[in-house]
Amino acid sequence: MENNTTNNENAEVISIAPNIKKRVFARKEKPAKKNYNQDSRGARNKLRIMFFGGVGEVGKNMTALCYNDDILVIDCGVAFPDEDMPGVDLVIPDMTYLKNNAHKIKGIVITHAHEDHIGSLPYFLDTVKAPVYASRLTLAMIQGKLREFPKVKMTGKVVKPHDVVKIGCFQVEFIHVNHSIAGAHALAIKTPVGTIVHSGDFKIDFTPLLEETTDLSRFGELGQKGVLMFLGESTNAEFEGFSLSEKVVRDTLKDLFEEFKEKRIIITVFASNVHRMQQIMNLAKQYGRKIAFAGRSMINNMEISMKVGEVAYDKSIIVDMAKIKNLKDSEALVLATGSQGQETTALARMARGEFQGLTLSPNDAVIFSSSPVPGNEKSVSGIINDLVEKGITVVYNDLASVHASGHACKGEFRIMHKLIKPKFFVPVHGEAKHQLAHKKLAMEMGMKESNIFVPHNGSVLEVTPHHARFVQDVQAGEALVDGLGIGQAGSNVLKERKQLANDGFCVVVLSVNLQKGEVLSGPEMIAKGFIYSHEAEKVLDEAKEAVLNSLSKINLQSIDKNELKNSIKQTLTNLFYRRIERKPIIIPIVMDIKK
Amino acid sequence: MENNTTNNENAEVISIAPNIKKRVFARKEKPAKKNYNQDSRGARNKLRIMFFGGVGEVGKNMTALCYNDDILVIDCGVAFPDEDMPGVDLVIPDMTYLKNNAHKIKGIVITHAHEDHIGSLPYFLDTVKAPVYASRLTLAMIQGKLREFPKVKMTGKVVKPHDVVKIGCFQVEFIHVNHSIAGAHALAIKTPVGTIVHSGDFKIDFTPLLEETTDLSRFGELGQKGVLMFLGESTNAEFEGFSLSEKVVRDTLKDLFEEFKEKRIIITVFASNVHRMQQIMNLAKQYGRKIAFAGRSMINNMEISMKVGEVAYDKSIIVDMAKIKNLKDSEALVLATGSQGQETTALARMARGEFQGLTLSPNDAVIFSSSPVPGNEKSVSGIINDLVEKGITVVYNDLASVHASGHACKGEFRIMHKLIKPKFFVPVHGEAKHQLAHKKLAMEMGMKESNIFVPHNGSVLEVTPHHARFVQDVQAGEALVDGLGIGQAGSNVLKERKQLANDGFCVVVLSVNLQKGEVLSGPEMIAKGFIYSHEAEKVLDEAKEAVLNSLSKINLQSIDKNELKNSIKQTLTNLFYRRIERKPIIIPIVMDIKK
Repeated sequence: MENNTTNNENAEVISIAPNIKKRVFARKEKPAKKNYNQDSRGARNKLRIMFFGGVGEVGKNMTALCYNDDILVIDCGVAFPDEDMPGVDLVIPDMTYLKNNAHKIKGIVITHAHEDHIGSLPYFLDTVKAPVYASRLTLAMIQGKLREFPKVKMTGKVVKPHDVVKIGCFQVEFIHVNHSIAGAHALAIKTPVGTIVHSGDFKIDFTPLLEETTDLSRFGELGQKGVLMFLGESTNAEFEGFSLSEKVVRDTLKDLFEEFKEKRIIITVFASNVHRMQQIMNLAKQYGRKIAFAGRSMINNMEISMKVGEVAYDKSIIVDMAKIKNLKDSEALVLATGSQGQETTALARMARGEFQGLTLSPNDAVIFSSSPVPGNEKSVSGIINDLVEKGITVVYNDLASVHASGHACKGEFRIMHKLIKPKFFVPVHGEAKHQLAHKKLAMEMGMKESNIFVPHNGSVLEVTPHHARFVQDVQAGEALVDGLGIGQAGSNVLKERKQLANDGFCVVVLSVNLQKGEVLSGPEMIAKGFIYSHEAEKVLDEAKEAVLNSLSKINLQSIDKNELKNSIKQTLTNLFYRRIERKPIIIPIVMDIKK
Repeated sequence: MENNTTNNENAEVISIAPNIKKRVFARKEKPAKKNYNQDSRGARNKLRIMFFGGVGEVGKNMTALCYNDDILVIDCGVAFPDEDMPGVDLVIPDMTYLKNNAHKIKGIVITHAHEDHIGSLPYFLDTVKAPVYASRLTLAMIQGKLREFPKVKMTGKVVKPHDVVKIGCFQVEFIHVNHSIAGAHALAIKTPVGTIVHSGDFKIDFTPLLEETTDLSRFGELGQKGVLMFLGESTNAEFEGFSLSEKVVRDTLKDLFEEFKEKRIIITVFASNVHRMQQIMNLAKQYGRKIAFAGRSMINNMEISMKVGEVAYDKSIIVDMAKIKNLKDSEALVLATGSQGQETTALARMARGEFQGLTLSPNDAVIFSSSPVPGNEKSVSGIINDLVEKGITVVYNDLASVHASGHACKGEFRIMHKLIKPKFFVPVHGEAKHQLAHKKLAMEMGMKESNIFVPHNGSVLEVTPHHARFVQDVQAGEALVDGLGIGQAGSNVLKERKQLANDGFCVVVLSVNLQKGEVLSGPEMIAKGFIYSHEAEKVLDEAKEAVLNSLSKINLQSIDKNELKNSIKQTLTNLFYRRIERKPIIIPIVMDIKK
């Protein structure tokens, strides 16, 4: 262990690599309170690692390190809703515990700018005022996001590889890693109980094009000095071998530029993969093509990245989308959003022939420099098929090496484990099956099962220099962002939406005078999402008759409004199921007009 | 060409393989009408191949061969609804043209019993009374399906490999092929213009376990005699190499039975893959395990298959599901439905701990002897994760060779093309990208592009002994089965359902006396699937107020009911979007009470 004592004094930055100009951020801490509430999370002088998201799932990564009165938060991401959450825009972690302990949070560290690492910040920074430490690019992208949330303010602190910053009692070192977005860091965190290495999301690219390889020697040095615990991402832990290098992608793309010399080229890519876009822009320049961006997020990200120095390109080769049709096919390149098949994106509209200013023709070649994330396979296939049917040449990942994942495979994980040599291992960032695959890999390399801890959302891992164990869970889960509201998962609303999506609804309106036992008007029926129109009328007529028929058997003077409603509902439920095998939501509205 | 003349006489069966006992089915044809309506489809003495489903998509395969007054239908399948068809149970082909020409249909040939080849029969045989030719197993499975449609009758004709039957002017030979279901056939159809080979769905398994290898030498013989056109399936045409053999799967399963000797084993498999189930039952017997079936479709299919002689097993090793808990883990095997992750299936319920009579524990091993079909990846992963989280051992296709696809890869396609040597080639059964991959493969093998025809649903290919060309499309498309109704795609109902799923609805009820300009009661508001409950009340209160406020500004005596409704709708639409960024369906109900 490098450091077993707490240090709540003003930060002294430890320069791990003294030749490299270091950046220092220190926060003046208040003197530690002598008398504090010893709550269940407050065991003194023990490190507690709390998992609020990203374990047992892909998405909404969020972890906290807690030691006495200091909390360090790592990442604050969103997940995207499943099919069984209709109408939900985003899924964010339940951050109740952290918000209740906002005063203890000394800093938020963001490993990189993907949505599953930054997307929940607007819903966290409304309450938590701690500074956010991240690379220049990551912070710039967060700032871009926060423009939609004018009330949320952030104090950003720029860090770069080799920087060590003191955050409460923690000394956080940022280590360069390869990933599918620039400005990604792993973390080596000196805590009072020992050094914790957190991989962030990473791969090892031995032939990267616009950056260095993941800083293996620094991980080796840390391993030599002693690492207490390694939190390693697990996304691709099921797959043997090594992830593809960006160089292979560039070479493939170059071959395609050569092959498609006479064609117009359209390339879709994740808008956050700015290095990939830079490669493509370099190829465009080399092959004498002008570039138009279709999709605002791409040009935004490139501008941000240029500003912070992550990419550099000659602005004169960029043309407005409206001008692309004036260029010869052989001189035009379009960079388009839509790599995930989302309906409203530029490429999807092009495939449907609905994109203004660009009509695709068989002299176009569309390259998917991307791969579908789980759940999007069908919509991506749909776009590819639309294009193929129009006679357009399409190149995608199944056919050529036009995309490289940002996540390590088994070969890379083995290198990391061997370099870091942690005492304890925690597989993070992945579904249960990915975590298990990563655990097995560690065991195959000789780690004892008792030294491996597989957390789920809500897990709390208590760590001392010699031991680690799970203690009682902390509140964790999903909160659903839906329009401007935030609600809980498992809500009735989602059940209703699913029923509505499957069976629609039927409103039946009746005005009566119960005192006099008279039906004044109705039943009037309104159905939506119910059955196909040419049958609907017939069925609704039958339904009307059935209600009238059942009313004729009831003494309206001896029944109350709710009984009447229930009776109507029952009549219709039975009828609809018998006639069309459907269970629409039935809303009986009875207006009891007294006068 | 083998045969260029029409033959509408009573069938003479040609025995291709005279040593094999042949089965003959002939239909007495009415004498050809001399004067017929020369409609656009009626070009005399030309073969027309019409594609009603299965081209440009995976699913609902249906093709028709038309020559003068004879129509032969090949397959009659369903597709499963996409995510954007909420509430839809099945998608069937638009069969209008064939139903209008029902009297010309001389027979329906079914290549195998998968749903995408048989599922639409109940909606076709209600009108079309032609006999259905298929293997014994296929017919038995169709009969099983038809039990749910008591009004639909079928005349089934059992065929087996080498059989040649005369169907109108067509002589149809059935050829054994390997696929992921037993009793699968390819077709060699002698037509008046030449021989058409239809692959059905197939693979080439050189080491199958319970059947012969695809009858390659017969395809070779046909190729030597001359094949005019090859209709070849394309599902896996993007993939290099060869499909896995069933022997590899059996060997892997055997290794797992060995490895899991002390564990209880649960295996999930496609319920139609009866040969795979037979293998598993053989292993169970060998390893001294009793078998329980969880999921009715499995036991049904095994019983049917046993009856027709496709499988054979010792019934004494089958136990009732209720008794499985009395067995030692090492002596129990459960075969469970749920390989596609469907919520209500046995395995999904086991994973959630909701399956009666079987509670899974860490001494269970679950094997997915299957792979997710496109679109089901996420739900299958969900079940795997549920199991992994419970500490249960899970083996699936990413980890071991526990499943083999039923579809040929490029290596197999090359063999088929080389054997059959067709003059014309038509890639079928696949999405546009699969068809294109198959087309490219044929071209790489030397076929001229002008001899390859890529159809879409509705395509009509006119074929003579020397030429083929697309002529005007026939009516084709999707019909949606929804409960007991059948409707058209693109219907308003689906749009409504999607809106309901995303944003829910709000009914606002008001009773007024417009003559007197009085509001009698209301507005009453009912919302479902709308927003999360703790906010809903507040927003609905505001909505009520907004409606009252807008009513106070209107002279009710000078407005009609529809104007009033529109005004209320507009008020609420604006309010809801401003307050919660949602656009629920708004149903204003105004009851104008006159007295």
